[in-house]
Amino acid sequence: MLDSQIKNCFIAPDNQNREQVEIIFDNIIKQILNYLCNADNFPPYPPLKIFAASDFSIPEAGFSLSQIQNNLALLFQHSMNPSSSKYIGHMDSISNIYAILGEMIAAAINNNMLSLEMSPFLTQLEYALIREFCDLFGLPRTSGGVITSGGSLANLQALVVARNETLKLNNGNLTNLRQTPVILCSEIAHASVAKAAMLIGIGSENVIKITVNSNFQMDVLDLKQKVMEYFTTEYIPIAIVATAGTTVTGSIDNLSEIAAIAKEHNIWLHIDAIYGGALVFGGERRHLLNGIEFADSISFNPQKWLYVAKTSSMVLFRNFSSMVSNFRITAPYMKEQEDFINLGEITIQGSHNAEILKLWLSLLAIGKDGYHQLIEYGYVLTNICLTEIKHCDYLQLVMEPQTNICCFKIKLTNYEDDFINSKLHDYLLQNGFFVSLPRFQGQLCLRMVLLNPFSSKNVIKSCFSLIDKFYNQHHVKGN
Amino acid sequence: MLDSQIKNCFIAPDNQNREQVEIIFDNIIKQILNYLCNADNFPPYPPLKIFAASDFSIPEAGFSLSQIQNNLALLFQHSMNPSSSKYIGHMDSISNIYAILGEMIAAAINNNMLSLEMSPFLTQLEYALIREFCDLFGLPRTSGGVITSGGSLANLQALVVARNETLKLNNGNLTNLRQTPVILCSEIAHASVAKAAMLIGIGSENVIKITVNSNFQMDVLDLKQKVMEYFTTEYIPIAIVATAGTTVTGSIDNLSEIAAIAKEHNIWLHIDAIYGGALVFGGERRHLLNGIEFADSISFNPQKWLYVAKTSSMVLFRNFSSMVSNFRITAPYMKEQEDFINLGEITIQGSHNAEILKLWLSLLAIGKDGYHQLIEYGYVLTNICLTEIKHCDYLQLVMEPQTNICCFKIKLTNYEDDFINSKLHDYLLQNGFFVSLPRFQGQLCLRMVLLNPFSSKNVIKSCFSLIDKFYNQHHVKGN
Repeated sequence: MLDSQIKNCFIAPDNQNREQVEIIFDNIIKQILNYLCNADNFPPYPPLKIFAASDFSIPEAGFSLSQIQNNLALLFQHSMNPSSSKYIGHMDSISNIYAILGEMIAAAINNNMLSLEMSPFLTQLEYALIREFCDLFGLPRTSGGVITSGGSLANLQALVVARNETLKLNNGNLTNLRQTPVILCSEIAHASVAKAAMLIGIGSENVIKITVNSNFQMDVLDLKQKVMEYFTTEYIPIAIVATAGTTVTGSIDNLSEIAAIAKEHNIWLHIDAIYGGALVFGGERRHLLNGIEFADSISFNPQKWLYVAKTSSMVLFRNFSSMVSNFRITAPYMKEQEDFINLGEITIQGSHNAEILKLWLSLLAIGKDGYHQLIEYGYVLTNICLTEIKHCDYLQLVMEPQTNICCFKIKLTNYEDDFINSKLHDYLLQNGFFVSLPRFQGQLCLRMVLLNPFSSKNVIKSCFSLIDKFYNQHHVKGN
Repeated sequence: MLDSQIKNCFIAPDNQNREQVEIIFDNIIKQILNYLCNADNFPPYPPLKIFAASDFSIPEAGFSLSQIQNNLALLFQHSMNPSSSKYIGHMDSISNIYAILGEMIAAAINNNMLSLEMSPFLTQLEYALIREFCDLFGLPRTSGGVITSGGSLANLQALVVARNETLKLNNGNLTNLRQTPVILCSEIAHASVAKAAMLIGIGSENVIKITVNSNFQMDVLDLKQKVMEYFTTEYIPIAIVATAGTTVTGSIDNLSEIAAIAKEHNIWLHIDAIYGGALVFGGERRHLLNGIEFADSISFNPQKWLYVAKTSSMVLFRNFSSMVSNFRITAPYMKEQEDFINLGEITIQGSHNAEILKLWLSLLAIGKDGYHQLIEYGYVLTNICLTEIKHCDYLQLVMEPQTNICCFKIKLTNYEDDFINSKLHDYLLQNGFFVSLPRFQGQLCLRMVLLNPFSSKNVIKSCFSLIDKFYNQHHVKGN
């Protein structure tokens, strides 16, 4: 009753169309590998092409394989290319092969992380790996957590639980409060904290910003003062959010000192380790996370420094059963199990795909040693950048990096800074390098994120040669 | 500086390791196809095996390809198998081939839907396809929306915007309210509505349940009464949530009548069309969605009846610019663009993967005609079930299906009902069929979701033969 063309859009379970399926798989995978195995032949960042709505119309009849491949060719040509060794622009890493395949397998078997019934193997896998990450971060045996589709959801869930726990709201009703809840975080905390405050009914204006020191870490004295200021009959702090790896500079707050303040005042401590959490595999760098073991909740994204395809995030709680009692919304039609709480009842998401699978395969393929090597390699590249920056008297380092991120700028007068650095950014792009250009503390700076295992010493050095050439041509020689 | 074993976990951009990459791809894809092309040789649902934590330990050194394949073999053996033609248990469909490949491509190029800068092609694609879905649902040109990772996030975002718009909360602060906000929905609305109420600070106790009629549609008279009851100086309704395709029976509320009530009282109307929204491609079935064009917001999941791998969801708003002003949290470090608002600023998620890609490829490959065929085929299978059920005097239909879901039970006395239906469920499972067994309105029933394009007439008939055999063996013949 179905056209065979439609049936052949699916894999028949009775081995009826394997030949056709293999043709589709072979052709599209060849096209993907032709692109990715030669990513250095494509610009790290293409010029922006504006498409017409009609370019994306849903057709009446299905397209042939070759028509679909033509569309994919457009996609590859006009997309960001983080696989290029000259892409050193954002915290968006290249995905490892097993993460790519893992995402495909998850889609192919389409199990549902909503419940143990609908993902019997994968729910157990998620519980087991979350347990290992809790151990790696030094949380006690009472801890546990869930995988979330992105770091904003991880921070959101942590702050919902902190709110419900602090205010004793077992069903989340804020409307009869006598005190205004506030969240304390550094002035450069991620925007997802303000977003979470808006979402959970606290309001983004009640996110209290703590100043930062010259390394862009939370100023602990200012935190102490603000805690006193907001612990009144009018206000109640529901969480302190510390950051381990800020968005622009990768700064790591002094977690131990912040934890001591949180403990003294009995305030929930959430640590946003979305970027820096990877340092659990950092060997001699692990100490940068000292104090993280005191957190009430931790968010962490393998999708960044662990080279897992987006999204791959988790939120961990010091006390799993308390998280469950503060968060769980049961679905009466779901099958109950004795030993595993259905993940759909304790995540913001309900039905969701098996993001855990690509993380698991990545961990199996790369191992703890491999991740240690990759993290160390990031520091090696960072040190090469640092040497280059310090070698140029016209470049100013924004701060001494704690992780694998270098921020710097050509330093002139304040007025000209933004103009010249923006011009340098364009010049690098035209010459095949993509670095990012965030506005930070009111000024534009160049930012290199040294994540790519194929960004060699030579790649970095040739980028700085270009910077030198730009400076000599456009500035010192007059313009 | 990196071991070659670690480097070979990535695709080198200079064509250095294509041979090794192809070996990994070929082997794993062969393993996947060996499983999926023969899915009928595996049970639709395996017996639950409980694993030890040590089965999932993170190794010190990375595993070889064959060790990884051994782990994948375990995964396939112990997972839910929705590809089996005898899997007719949940709204979890088989993924079409292009959705499977699309998910892999999204992971391979790892673009970030956070901003136009980080996904130049894919951000435009998302805007364009969302526009088309707005048109398909009959929303005006002012409308727009975003892709979300699952339906719970879609409902959550709609209710946050409804809350902010109704209460004029431009930063989401609920703590100075004089009235208690409430949400009105049917008593069988999805659990994500209660979850959203908890998350956004309204509290799940302030979700007001409207009774349902014998077709499990919202009782419009009860809705009218409850609206009057809760429109007081003490309470304020922030949204009516109607459902187009309920979780257990697939019932579609009378959207036009509900819309009239919402309009009369100026209450935000959210339509949860997560399941039934696919009927926009339903041709002669499209009328079931009549009235959806009056919604202020609509949530819809292609991950169900459009055969796209999880997650694939969207939330659409009648007035996009008002949604933006009620929701947007800007990230100062993100590059601003003139014509496209960065998607990370107007979604609950920030950085997220290109879920739009697998939806686009699915729409291209299957087309509007193909989806119409697939939906019609679901009704054909449903009618075969219906005939069988009506043919058996010991089976009771829970309701006449509006969509492709049949719920029924063996009808005895109330006390024995649950026991015998649960036994029947087990019997079918042991004989290679998986149907679900939800508890609904206090009683267990059998539920068939006729989504699988390979569940033929013969498959359905042999399932009912088994039911007949069970009834004759275990009940009438005494037990």
